[in-house]
Amino acid sequence: MRDVSVIGAGMVRFGKQPDKTLAEIAWPAVKQAIDDAGVSKPEIEAAWCGTALGGMMSGQRILKAVGLTGLPIVNVENACSSSSSAFREAWIAVAGGLYDVALVIGVEKLTRFGGGTLPLEREDFEVAHGMTMPALYGMRAKRYMHDYGLTPEQLAMVAVKAHDHGALNEDAQYRNRITVDEVMAARPIADPFTLLHCCPSGDGAAALVIAADSVAGRYSGKPVRVLASELASGKYMTGFRDMTTPEITVRGAKKAYEMAGVGPEDVDVAEVHDAFTIAELLYYEALGFCERGDAAGLLEDGETSLGGRIPVNPSGGLLSKGHPIGATGAAQMVEIVRQLRGECGGRQVEGARVGLTHCTGGGISGFDHGACSIHIFRN
Amino acid sequence: MRDVSVIGAGMVRFGKQPDKTLAEIAWPAVKQAIDDAGVSKPEIEAAWCGTALGGMMSGQRILKAVGLTGLPIVNVENACSSSSSAFREAWIAVAGGLYDVALVIGVEKLTRFGGGTLPLEREDFEVAHGMTMPALYGMRAKRYMHDYGLTPEQLAMVAVKAHDHGALNEDAQYRNRITVDEVMAARPIADPFTLLHCCPSGDGAAALVIAADSVAGRYSGKPVRVLASELASGKYMTGFRDMTTPEITVRGAKKAYEMAGVGPEDVDVAEVHDAFTIAELLYYEALGFCERGDAAGLLEDGETSLGGRIPVNPSGGLLSKGHPIGATGAAQMVEIVRQLRGECGGRQVEGARVGLTHCTGGGISGFDHGACSIHIFRN
Repeated sequence: MRDVSVIGAGMVRFGKQPDKTLAEIAWPAVKQAIDDAGVSKPEIEAAWCGTALGGMMSGQRILKAVGLTGLPIVNVENACSSSSSAFREAWIAVAGGLYDVALVIGVEKLTRFGGGTLPLEREDFEVAHGMTMPALYGMRAKRYMHDYGLTPEQLAMVAVKAHDHGALNEDAQYRNRITVDEVMAARPIADPFTLLHCCPSGDGAAALVIAADSVAGRYSGKPVRVLASELASGKYMTGFRDMTTPEITVRGAKKAYEMAGVGPEDVDVAEVHDAFTIAELLYYEALGFCERGDAAGLLEDGETSLGGRIPVNPSGGLLSKGHPIGATGAAQMVEIVRQLRGECGGRQVEGARVGLTHCTGGGISGFDHGACSIHIFRN
Repeated sequence: MRDVSVIGAGMVRFGKQPDKTLAEIAWPAVKQAIDDAGVSKPEIEAAWCGTALGGMMSGQRILKAVGLTGLPIVNVENACSSSSSAFREAWIAVAGGLYDVALVIGVEKLTRFGGGTLPLEREDFEVAHGMTMPALYGMRAKRYMHDYGLTPEQLAMVAVKAHDHGALNEDAQYRNRITVDEVMAARPIADPFTLLHCCPSGDGAAALVIAADSVAGRYSGKPVRVLASELASGKYMTGFRDMTTPEITVRGAKKAYEMAGVGPEDVDVAEVHDAFTIAELLYYEALGFCERGDAAGLLEDGETSLGGRIPVNPSGGLLSKGHPIGATGAAQMVEIVRQLRGECGGRQVEGARVGLTHCTGGGISGFDHGACSIHIFRN
């Protein structure tokens, strides 16, 4: 299969936009990505749109608004991994030789549901019994605290770091800095989480243009190579489970590193799926950024903050930048592309060469996710 | 890109199954396809699930029920073309060399919405003003009657033919034969349609296993080659429109025939998207089975009935076999695979070598569809 690069990236600031249609939310991100790539609309051969809850024909409605019509459009749903999965579908088609230039969109309008936690599938046994996302991650946090001595203060520091980074990102939903005390004093959600341990609900969109390396040089957009594109689903094992090891992420990361020919020690910057504070800590370990049980230490030492050894979520992450489900995967990639191009201004990770995005979600059977996608990029 | 064949096909009888979950509806179709292919579950490297309204993580929920876990699963939404688009995604990945063996699922449970016409997207301007599918196709029928002298009796004959075929298909939702008089006397829906001019609502699932030709010989499932896989979206032209020419189908068919290296005269059997009686007649012309204005003659002469020159919808089509949106595209392919293998018993098209499936839908801006997929197969 052929080498593929991202040549254009765009996004709109995440936030609540209840008065806009899905297409109105998304089209500026698409236009920005196309302009950034320096492609003309007729050169885009196909499009994939990731959305979890956008409704039928989301991609078509958006591209009609952009005036990009007639081309093959496929909508992809994989819960939190919707647009990272859409990206992978586009990558498969370009790497496989069917198309040279393709567009990826991620979009969501969660305000249509009135806010609160996600409208999960009621056919799922655990969900029907109350195993919503905050409950699930809350249980994981309690277990990790018990097993590894994580303190409530350390857990709150994940949110503090996210907001410190998000304050530097004009596309972030929340740009206010917060303190450990404020996190701990916020409204309780699911023990040990307060509101500030949980990512916000909101609307948003992000988009990318990708091209085969053989043609990427024709366009003005500075290319960022896709080294690995990996997608896994859960194994849904019954019986005894280690609930603080996200097995799907461990497995997906192993495959992604193999494909990319790099290891966790080579990653200069990462966007990981911090839907809840504990999640980011679990993923440090699952992605190999530190040993088991050392996540809180890595955080406290500042290694995952801007200026540290491996800055995680310089964009502010889901906790501060926001998490409009279907938009998140593409937005993570927009951040990594901009980091690897050196376009991030005050939140730039200096000298970043290799970046990783990690998007996982879709609760099925409690602790296993339905889709985890990991991508590795290099400038 | 590599040659790819379907090596396994399965489906469950379409109909109303309100007491089953989506996974319970679908897993028997998946199992049938896997058994038919003669592959073991670990040999399936990835899966795509087409569903328009199944909800988040449909494919994951189904494959968990089958015990097929860990592999990459992508859910695809393209309205009526959801599972035909899912098939195309799988085909791209196998033809492009990423995987050797992949699974495609189509599924829908419309009874969760309580019946009636589809819950279309209210953000669409025309839909919000009452342009539902029966209204849209009703207008097309009236225009075609005006322009070409199509009679109400001829229009009703499409439904009569569909039920004649469906009566021979044990997977059809409706297996009763009907008369022209019965069609015309049924409850009015949208002039000139009565209830029997409209496809029924229901639940169902279908599945296919595909493989690169280089490995297909390892499995017992009799291969049927994919000659063409095409997907188009609408152009959403404003101003004067020929509302009885489905431009997206004309354009998609042209590309599909070019890719397959065959013409409409080579097609021995076709499954086309007869969501309403008029649709089948319009698609005869758009797919090149007859000249403009000659569709009613082709039908009246029995050329599209079993035993005719080009039998259309031997399965009973959407009108009789049923139309659980996301399942339809895959079910059309199951029928064509079985026809090209000579497995169709009383409804077998003798000596069929080349078969075509046509799936189109997703109303955007009235007369243009959001997704039209056309596939051509050869035994």
